[in-house]
Amino acid sequence: MENRITRLLGIEFPIIQGGMIWCSGWKLASAVSNAGGLGLIGSGSMYPDVLKHHIQKCKTHTDKPFGVNVPLLYPNIEDQMNIIADEGVKIVFTSAGNPAAWTPWLKERGITVVHVVANTKNAKKCEGLGVDAIVAEGFEAGGHNGREETTTMCLIPMVREVCNLPLIAAGGISSGKTIAAAICLGAEGVQAGSRFAASAESSAHASFKQAILNAGDGDTQLTLKELTPVRLLKNKFYNDVIEAYNKDASTDELVALLGRGRAKKGMFEGDIDEGELEIGQASAFIHQIKPAGEIVREMMDEYRQTRGSLPAL
Amino acid sequence: MENRITRLLGIEFPIIQGGMIWCSGWKLASAVSNAGGLGLIGSGSMYPDVLKHHIQKCKTHTDKPFGVNVPLLYPNIEDQMNIIADEGVKIVFTSAGNPAAWTPWLKERGITVVHVVANTKNAKKCEGLGVDAIVAEGFEAGGHNGREETTTMCLIPMVREVCNLPLIAAGGISSGKTIAAAICLGAEGVQAGSRFAASAESSAHASFKQAILNAGDGDTQLTLKELTPVRLLKNKFYNDVIEAYNKDASTDELVALLGRGRAKKGMFEGDIDEGELEIGQASAFIHQIKPAGEIVREMMDEYRQTRGSLPAL
Repeated sequence: MENRITRLLGIEFPIIQGGMIWCSGWKLASAVSNAGGLGLIGSGSMYPDVLKHHIQKCKTHTDKPFGVNVPLLYPNIEDQMNIIADEGVKIVFTSAGNPAAWTPWLKERGITVVHVVANTKNAKKCEGLGVDAIVAEGFEAGGHNGREETTTMCLIPMVREVCNLPLIAAGGISSGKTIAAAICLGAEGVQAGSRFAASAESSAHASFKQAILNAGDGDTQLTLKELTPVRLLKNKFYNDVIEAYNKDASTDELVALLGRGRAKKGMFEGDIDEGELEIGQASAFIHQIKPAGEIVREMMDEYRQTRGSLPAL
Repeated sequence: MENRITRLLGIEFPIIQGGMIWCSGWKLASAVSNAGGLGLIGSGSMYPDVLKHHIQKCKTHTDKPFGVNVPLLYPNIEDQMNIIADEGVKIVFTSAGNPAAWTPWLKERGITVVHVVANTKNAKKCEGLGVDAIVAEGFEAGGHNGREETTTMCLIPMVREVCNLPLIAAGGISSGKTIAAAICLGAEGVQAGSRFAASAESSAHASFKQAILNAGDGDTQLTLKELTPVRLLKNKFYNDVIEAYNKDASTDELVALLGRGRAKKGMFEGDIDEGELEIGQASAFIHQIKPAGEIVREMMDEYRQTRGSLPAL
């Protein structure tokens, strides 16, 4: 398949592995890239020297394209961007921030820029800024999320209407069926997070991976909307947040409750009770930890099956 | 196309028009049925004698199958059900309640029963009760909605995994592209509400129809979760609800604010400020009021186009 996404990113299949904090280092990114998708290193949980290490390892483990995801709301952005440019990374996904801030700087250095949006307003904005492609991420996605709460089923057609950039769908993507659905809606590629968080090469703690497998319908919730909305797996920490709401906690009290290092504690260190566990609704139909390359191949096989069996009406 | 939904309901196309309060009387239901879909009379906003009148009119305006939607949370259910049986209605969609309550009674009378669910637990429950098919309705749908907040993109694959009944997808369905997406996910038919609320034959007030056309991304919100969660178009009444939340209103105070007749005031009488306007996220990509039959035909044409252009990968 040759479409605008595969051509832009130089990949075989239009499957992008989301650059998640604490889950996606060089092992996961290189495994996905080697399988024909696009692996992304998630820089959001990395100090600059850690990011440099992961980029260097990734380069030695794949000769195919890979990228780095940079959440613009974290500190050290300038250091991160300098490392990315110095190390010759060719593709950057920016998220959680204003695409105007870094797109010109990256484009000047010949880097392909993909920006993540959760609404039509930001999708339109990207078009005038030189962004090469966008990811439109629906309400069902894990981690930080849009305030409009627009779901993938509605967001993709809406964005397609107002923005002509190559379009990657995210949120709920975890199988070939969901890839086919996203393409029917107008996407040209997909980004999957949760499915790869529960892969063999994910750097998530084994206990977090198991928690993803255990998750069922209704086990995640978008919360902390006063801070940055985030979809969490329900656990003791989540219950503490809800209790704080029931006691009319102020925004400052919520910030204090969240504290520092909650996500690392849960997702990387495996404290399933006290940690912040960011994961999407798709966790409810993830039942097995598999190698990332196998996940890519299974998704593609199921896509082809789904396409072939779509009935004439 | 012959599938389990078209065979069960005796229809040409697996498109069901949702039985919405204040929007779907005999005019809309018969128009959809005449076009080859399944029209539903929405009994939730009808006194028993009004329902009887709509069923009788519907019978004289179409010789094709049609049905009645009965939200089980409203009063007068027994009267409604007796009228439905006496008038020889062949298909009943039950929603917002326990399917065990009325399924045996309806089945004894030879009536096809379809139950609306918003989670996997209730989908599984339907299987043992003699329900003929289910509608699985995602978070993006208008009106009353599930507490799990599972979106259509995630709910359909989840339900498909645990329940073997014929499956109709609802929530975000408004075009042939979204029908194709739903079928890729595992559905065998679709139910569309918002799209038909903004049709020529809808009994919604012209001002409400115009408000649907005006709605954009982020203009609806799921709220009143302490009562029965409902997705509303943001307006003055919605802002009053949010203000009540900000003042820590009790559940009793919310019930008092909602009062009686809010939905009728907004959707049927056209008081766009003070009324309760129930509509789905799909309203953001509905741009024109059209005859219901034309909507059905356009959806089918777009489905075929989408199917034909799904790329090989």
